[in-house]
Amino acid sequence: MNLLKETLKSISPNNLDAMKLTREKWDSLVKPIGSLGQLEEITIKLAGITGNVHNKIDKKAIVVMCSDNGVVEEGVSSAPQIFTRLLTESMAKGITGVATLGKFTNADIKTVDIGLNGSMDNPKVINKKIANGTKNFTKTSAMTYEEGVKSIEIGIEIGDMLYNDGYDILGTGELGIGNTTTSAAILSVLGGLDVDTVCGKGAGLTDEQLENKKNVILRGIEINKPNREEPIDVLSKVGGFDIGGMCGLFLSAAKNKKPIVMDGFISSAAALCAIKLNPLVKDYIIPSHLSDEPGAISMMNVLGLKPLFNLEMRLGEGTGCPFAFQVLESALYTLEHMGTFSEASIESDVLVNIREE
Amino acid sequence: MNLLKETLKSISPNNLDAMKLTREKWDSLVKPIGSLGQLEEITIKLAGITGNVHNKIDKKAIVVMCSDNGVVEEGVSSAPQIFTRLLTESMAKGITGVATLGKFTNADIKTVDIGLNGSMDNPKVINKKIANGTKNFTKTSAMTYEEGVKSIEIGIEIGDMLYNDGYDILGTGELGIGNTTTSAAILSVLGGLDVDTVCGKGAGLTDEQLENKKNVILRGIEINKPNREEPIDVLSKVGGFDIGGMCGLFLSAAKNKKPIVMDGFISSAAALCAIKLNPLVKDYIIPSHLSDEPGAISMMNVLGLKPLFNLEMRLGEGTGCPFAFQVLESALYTLEHMGTFSEASIESDVLVNIREE
Repeated sequence: MNLLKETLKSISPNNLDAMKLTREKWDSLVKPIGSLGQLEEITIKLAGITGNVHNKIDKKAIVVMCSDNGVVEEGVSSAPQIFTRLLTESMAKGITGVATLGKFTNADIKTVDIGLNGSMDNPKVINKKIANGTKNFTKTSAMTYEEGVKSIEIGIEIGDMLYNDGYDILGTGELGIGNTTTSAAILSVLGGLDVDTVCGKGAGLTDEQLENKKNVILRGIEINKPNREEPIDVLSKVGGFDIGGMCGLFLSAAKNKKPIVMDGFISSAAALCAIKLNPLVKDYIIPSHLSDEPGAISMMNVLGLKPLFNLEMRLGEGTGCPFAFQVLESALYTLEHMGTFSEASIESDVLVNIREE
Repeated sequence: MNLLKETLKSISPNNLDAMKLTREKWDSLVKPIGSLGQLEEITIKLAGITGNVHNKIDKKAIVVMCSDNGVVEEGVSSAPQIFTRLLTESMAKGITGVATLGKFTNADIKTVDIGLNGSMDNPKVINKKIANGTKNFTKTSAMTYEEGVKSIEIGIEIGDMLYNDGYDILGTGELGIGNTTTSAAILSVLGGLDVDTVCGKGAGLTDEQLENKKNVILRGIEINKPNREEPIDVLSKVGGFDIGGMCGLFLSAAKNKKPIVMDGFISSAAALCAIKLNPLVKDYIIPSHLSDEPGAISMMNVLGLKPLFNLEMRLGEGTGCPFAFQVLESALYTLEHMGTFSEASIESDVLVNIREE
């Protein structure tokens, strides 16, 4: 609990001076003010995060939190629970979607067993197992409050370790059959939204199975009565270890004044927990894509974050992060190398005055 | 006129067999069917374009068509006409937005003077000047019908040359003060849309200037009476040389069975002309971003194309193309390197049956 408390206390606001200097640098470049849109905004945000105008994200990792969810007993997922373990093995082998995209974009993959059901004896998987999956939240709390705290602290420890090892940026990823259910439950409670709005078909449910999934979430909330003012209570009662672990990663980024990229629907449930624990965390998070999961739009509205792109992906794993890395690297390169008005022999006051409204 | 006629006749539909084989390859990979969304769709489209399942886009170029528009006399732009030439010089120097992003993504920039007002003596600019800018379309036709054809044929020639030189993919770009006005005019006529819907503030107009811009477009349409069934008539009367040139690039791509990336609002006006000349062209175009120009959404609806991302950019020049290249390259790499169900020791029929609805 101390690590969590100290982390939350240590988080401070973004550096406004660095942001202002970065905006001024963009405004000196040969283009109408603001015309590079999000390219400008994400580098300005990054400057606020690190406190520097000049940034690089050469060393990148995506942390994939793997865990099982007891609630799959209720038939909320189209795939059997064993898939979480099989896919974790595939992650270690480097053949999953995010592992492949990570290779292409030169991002390392860090695979963490934070609560798989069954042993995972693989040197390429970091063993931080809390339990053999959570409990079925339609019958009892998914985990104890202490386990909820522990899952967050594991995320903080891993984030701290990686940022200390010289990683410039992290991305969040996960594997966990049933985790669109836990994410929808968290979003419903912490975001104050109808289960109908936040609940989708995940990897592939029928209409009937979707109705069941909604009922399962409603029963979980009814039985456990999570306190929406207390994110750790919500995480523990209807969440999952993977979500807790990613929540910790977000907190670690904010503590270390380093950027972190948020993947899709499940990562954003973790971001919501982190932001509810300390609203300043939001300013350290770089969103990536809008997931194709129907609740994703509501989630973005609740978070107040705007995704950079919508590639209609719904694989999870962290697959949105490599694309955000590419956009951010392109934006940083442009900021450093694009010409100024004076290099273009243009009087800067002509274009600078354009579109300032 | 012969080159245009022959080009239009030579365009054939996409290769459905290659598309089917590519979809089957995706479906063998360890993920729920379709869960990589647009990553899957753009590689399937690319297979249809080239007729091959295995594709690469190692050699890339963005063609920047530079020309001036006589209609700027009417105060439709916030920047003076001389900027087109100054920015063309900057393009040749490699310091513009698209030149910088091109360098980062290993895409060559080909700068073409297709109708700048004034001489451009720069060995890095391809001289294909048709005239010293178009005429003011509120007074007369922007160009003659023959000049319209010529602008398209220049685009075809340049596209043919580059694809013959071994370029795997091209992107469209432009420089031309006043070209959101010409694009909006084309979209209004060919798309059958209100000027109010398609007209925006470009690089940065005031509300009053925006009203003037709308009136200018309405007057241009009223005076010239472009025939909406005849895209070359529309291009000639209210368009620009840059738009004609890009239209030719799209036609060349379709003729050569090679992909072409469409940038933002102005590029998509050229795409609309090309698709109206031959609807099959649409299947050779890979969209990039949704421009921040307000008419961009209507344009995409008229084209029936879906942008890959929305980075709120409104610089033009071709700046959306490098990002589409990145997404496409990532998708091609994933298709080639991601593991199959059998490599993941998963019975394929379990996941293959997921989400086939």
